[in-house]
Amino acid sequence: MAKLVECVPNFSEGRNKEVVEKIVDEVRKIDGVKLLDYSSDEDHNRSVITMIGAPEKIKEAVLNASKVAIGLIDMSKHQGAHPRMGAVDVIPFTPVSDITMEECIELAKEVAEEFGKLDIPVYLYEEAATKPERKNLADIRKGQYEGFFEKISGENWKPDFGPQVMNIKSGCSAIGARVPLVAFNVNLGTNDVEIAKAIAKKVRFIGGGLRFVKAIGLKLEERNIVQVSMNLVNYEKTSVYRAFEMVKMEAKRYGVPVVGSEVIGTVPMRALLDCAEYYLQIENFDINQILEKRLLE
Amino acid sequence: MAKLVECVPNFSEGRNKEVVEKIVDEVRKIDGVKLLDYSSDEDHNRSVITMIGAPEKIKEAVLNASKVAIGLIDMSKHQGAHPRMGAVDVIPFTPVSDITMEECIELAKEVAEEFGKLDIPVYLYEEAATKPERKNLADIRKGQYEGFFEKISGENWKPDFGPQVMNIKSGCSAIGARVPLVAFNVNLGTNDVEIAKAIAKKVRFIGGGLRFVKAIGLKLEERNIVQVSMNLVNYEKTSVYRAFEMVKMEAKRYGVPVVGSEVIGTVPMRALLDCAEYYLQIENFDINQILEKRLLE
Repeated sequence: MAKLVECVPNFSEGRNKEVVEKIVDEVRKIDGVKLLDYSSDEDHNRSVITMIGAPEKIKEAVLNASKVAIGLIDMSKHQGAHPRMGAVDVIPFTPVSDITMEECIELAKEVAEEFGKLDIPVYLYEEAATKPERKNLADIRKGQYEGFFEKISGENWKPDFGPQVMNIKSGCSAIGARVPLVAFNVNLGTNDVEIAKAIAKKVRFIGGGLRFVKAIGLKLEERNIVQVSMNLVNYEKTSVYRAFEMVKMEAKRYGVPVVGSEVIGTVPMRALLDCAEYYLQIENFDINQILEKRLLE
Repeated sequence: MAKLVECVPNFSEGRNKEVVEKIVDEVRKIDGVKLLDYSSDEDHNRSVITMIGAPEKIKEAVLNASKVAIGLIDMSKHQGAHPRMGAVDVIPFTPVSDITMEECIELAKEVAEEFGKLDIPVYLYEEAATKPERKNLADIRKGQYEGFFEKISGENWKPDFGPQVMNIKSGCSAIGARVPLVAFNVNLGTNDVEIAKAIAKKVRFIGGGLRFVKAIGLKLEERNIVQVSMNLVNYEKTSVYRAFEMVKMEAKRYGVPVVGSEVIGTVPMRALLDCAEYYLQIENFDINQILEKRLLE
């Protein structure tokens, strides 16, 4: 089997469809890169592209897409519900097959170096992090774009690549390598964002919640409801259903119902099958019972 | 998208391994067709091959295998315990993913047409049936090979393809399309088999229950519990979770808990993902978000 890496860059534009299409087009152009998915969120004002392919091809696609994004997005005018610090906010590389985490880290460094040449400060994160305090994306991104003009001059925040000065138009970026992440949001039947924020705090690791859950609470203005937006950074150890049930449980104290959920981007089959197994109380299930699984053998 | 169809042809040879291997070899030869399983039964004198792949590839594989079977099997000398009417006794096509029942019916017709060109009478059955009395395979096969020399001349039994005269060497064939069956059992925390039987009656179609559920109640002697054993004959319309929840609901009146469930044999990914979607209340989920699904493209 060929070396395959997944890359899920997040861009700080989710409202202007024309700009999003121009960014995505750069991925479409590269032969040998499969565009798995892309989606934009107007409230977040953010777009996420999921692509998969050989490391060299993925590097080319994500660099070309980033250059278009850097040209078209002006962070000094950006507003959106989701935390962000740059036009190309974050680029994670994830091993899919026949490739090691070390190779993904190397890939992250190569792309980060190119960003540096464009005068964009870059922080390597997660498995690629050069310091413990840069492992967690939320720690890096704290203060966001606006706060980084000051933050960047601190001794601890010298970028891994690029100048130690904020790029006004493009902000700064986090580039790294990580195990597959499941982006999972739970929607609540209230318009009180404080409730979503309180629940997010309870559910996430840093608040004493589940080990591999990151969460924030935010408002979905269009629907006039709120959302606990989560990143499950190790779905094998902290299952989707556990995060879901914990949000539901915490919501009960406010008498607030869960009105829906969303899986953003791609998700490994196992992550959702685990949920079916849990809720149906299936005994001794073997993933090889899945017809499609046999085809990937 | 990767259209996937499953095909499970039944051949009237289960004793001569050399012949069986030659038939199976034709499936092995086709790139893009996955041979999931094959087994022969000496008493039945019959072999069953399970394969999965893209419709065009499956068509090629099953036609090539059939031609070898037609060349090597002489029905005028065939004896076996299992009802049969032809060398290639029956070919069902089942939609697995990204393919409609209509496309599987079309595939059945295309293969049937090729059989007709080989002077083999063919009856389309199940979803592909052209008359109500041809829906059920057992109704078509009644009288078997020996009886068909007379049966075929009846007005009602004019074949859908091929001549209205029996092929002495190869007999006749049934070719059709059907939905995959999910074998799903729910275990109850009681040793009273009457409770399982009563619930089975409520849940199944003939008892006023769910349209596509067949069910019986039985005892699991070893574990000293009882089970509602179900066949879900159309999991797209009667989902696994609905059958599960209905058993749970009926069990409540007896104060009996559901202690577990079992999925028997292979199951299409979609059947279980539907359950994850339901319980997690996922909005707008697209099966293409499943990473493995995209790798099958």
